[in-house]
Amino acid sequence: MKPIETIRWDDDTSTIVLIDQTRLPLSFRVIRCRTVDRLITAIRRLEVRGAPALGVAGAYGVALAAAVIRERELSRFLGKVEAAAHAIANARPTAVNLSWGVNRVLSSIRRWSTISEIRHAALQEAHRLAREDSESCHAIGDNGSALIADGTTVLTHCNAGALACREWGTALGIIRSAVESGKEVQVIACETRPLFQGARLTAWELNQDGIAVTVIPDSAAAYLMRKGEIDCAVVGADRITRGAVFNKVGTYMHAVCARAHAIPFYVAAPLSTFDPVHSANEIVIEERDRNEVAFCGGHAMIPEGVPVRNPAFDATPLDLVNAIVTESGILRPPLDWDDITRIHRVI
Amino acid sequence: MKPIETIRWDDDTSTIVLIDQTRLPLSFRVIRCRTVDRLITAIRRLEVRGAPALGVAGAYGVALAAAVIRERELSRFLGKVEAAAHAIANARPTAVNLSWGVNRVLSSIRRWSTISEIRHAALQEAHRLAREDSESCHAIGDNGSALIADGTTVLTHCNAGALACREWGTALGIIRSAVESGKEVQVIACETRPLFQGARLTAWELNQDGIAVTVIPDSAAAYLMRKGEIDCAVVGADRITRGAVFNKVGTYMHAVCARAHAIPFYVAAPLSTFDPVHSANEIVIEERDRNEVAFCGGHAMIPEGVPVRNPAFDATPLDLVNAIVTESGILRPPLDWDDITRIHRVI
Repeated sequence: MKPIETIRWDDDTSTIVLIDQTRLPLSFRVIRCRTVDRLITAIRRLEVRGAPALGVAGAYGVALAAAVIRERELSRFLGKVEAAAHAIANARPTAVNLSWGVNRVLSSIRRWSTISEIRHAALQEAHRLAREDSESCHAIGDNGSALIADGTTVLTHCNAGALACREWGTALGIIRSAVESGKEVQVIACETRPLFQGARLTAWELNQDGIAVTVIPDSAAAYLMRKGEIDCAVVGADRITRGAVFNKVGTYMHAVCARAHAIPFYVAAPLSTFDPVHSANEIVIEERDRNEVAFCGGHAMIPEGVPVRNPAFDATPLDLVNAIVTESGILRPPLDWDDITRIHRVI
Repeated sequence: MKPIETIRWDDDTSTIVLIDQTRLPLSFRVIRCRTVDRLITAIRRLEVRGAPALGVAGAYGVALAAAVIRERELSRFLGKVEAAAHAIANARPTAVNLSWGVNRVLSSIRRWSTISEIRHAALQEAHRLAREDSESCHAIGDNGSALIADGTTVLTHCNAGALACREWGTALGIIRSAVESGKEVQVIACETRPLFQGARLTAWELNQDGIAVTVIPDSAAAYLMRKGEIDCAVVGADRITRGAVFNKVGTYMHAVCARAHAIPFYVAAPLSTFDPVHSANEIVIEERDRNEVAFCGGHAMIPEGVPVRNPAFDATPLDLVNAIVTESGILRPPLDWDDITRIHRVI
């Protein structure tokens, strides 16, 4: 498998280079973010998306801010970097990894006393976080592969793949690792309305790797479950609180239906996705623009004036989740949050 | 409310006039079917769709065949009418009403001995069936209105409205009747992938009637259920067997999720939708073209070569259904099939 590199830092130009995920599968195009504003636009437009990739984007975003801010006085420089970091962290509210990536780089620069040291330290920390993201995904893949028997058909929703991370993926990382270990795996990718991340991105990246993938409308998943054609479900996560897994809208309905059919429902996520601080009720579910639902390929699918609800995420109670696969092992709810909090402080 | 007339016979031109449902909501256009082949095309393309409307289309289809077949010899004439009727009945496999409408008109013409009598009888029987469809819908509406309290928010899927019938609708007939009786009703219309009948048709016809409707992606229904924003679900049906309700794919997942949230799940359907003969396992679920899922507004949403599953319907076991609203009253599963079989023989 030739690795897909979703996000990287280009040293020659001091820019963040992203695969434009809004263009796939029709065209493969990269975006070069030379400014923090362009990065924020990319995050808002979902040119880069997926919780772990947003963590890496947040980290490189702070490094980019440090690189481009023209200010000679240290405290004013730091003030501007922090303001930029704050703006990046708030570009999207639900995925915890974005602010986690931003904060990790911010914390790493506070011990330095010159602007050039800070620039260097920010970039080094962002590189470290990006490397760790790759390592996490491969570890999640290896750990989760144990859950996937030979000949399994796996349902997945949205894209928790290489395109949602720096590379390899979380949910799709498990599938890649299972395939790499010689198992035969079929993937049923839910198209994932309204933005078709499953149809466009999951199908594209699995197809690139020669892994068998079939796309279905989101509403057909329960039909296939009832026919006995789904062996397990594996999805990613944007945030895991003590009560619930926040992930792309539709995850909850798949979890309810999987439980009704006694089909194991697995979540794949690095520990950076865990939020030991907030309760599920405190998490803001991003409601996105009407036009994402109302227009398809430029055509209006909904009469003018008819309102739309477009929640980007939903919350799946942990008791519907059979296991959460992390880089440090498989956790089975109920979770030991003391343990998670301890690890969380370290990473 | 100005009635929407989805399908009618035009006496002046001896044609079947249909609202082209593939164009809504962008444009309102009617199609004149002058030949049986054009009607079959209209059924296959879903220019006319919805179980009760297909019943009316099947009935008028036989009348159209009788009107246009140029044959002077009676048995050869009848042979050609029957061949045309067979072709119409098989244009789509899942909805039982289509073959039911065809067969009712076929049965009505067998007692006549001249071609002109047969032509007249076929048209009279089709008119009678069309009138009965309207009466059924209004009766379903009146019966079902009792289930809808003032201030209710109703979830619906696909379009079981005026556009799925001759007029008024089944599921939406209940909502229309409830609104007409002075109740405040909000409708959450699931967009209904892949062909957006909820977004395009349900939203259009409720909006025409000034009934409050909000469109959501199909995958957001369970999210709203969990938030307590759905009071009940009402859907139509394409066929009701002893074991299950066959309806647009996605119905089953809504029923599973409704049950998980203790939300009443209602089906609205005329008695012509009941199939006392076949078991659920015998029913063919129509699998439609890949392109319906793969293309949206002319744009490819799925990489070339990646396969798609596109089942048009699913089966909801009757134990997930709280009530079936028919023109002769509200039935609560388990059903008394002896009674239904008796009524079925009469209609």
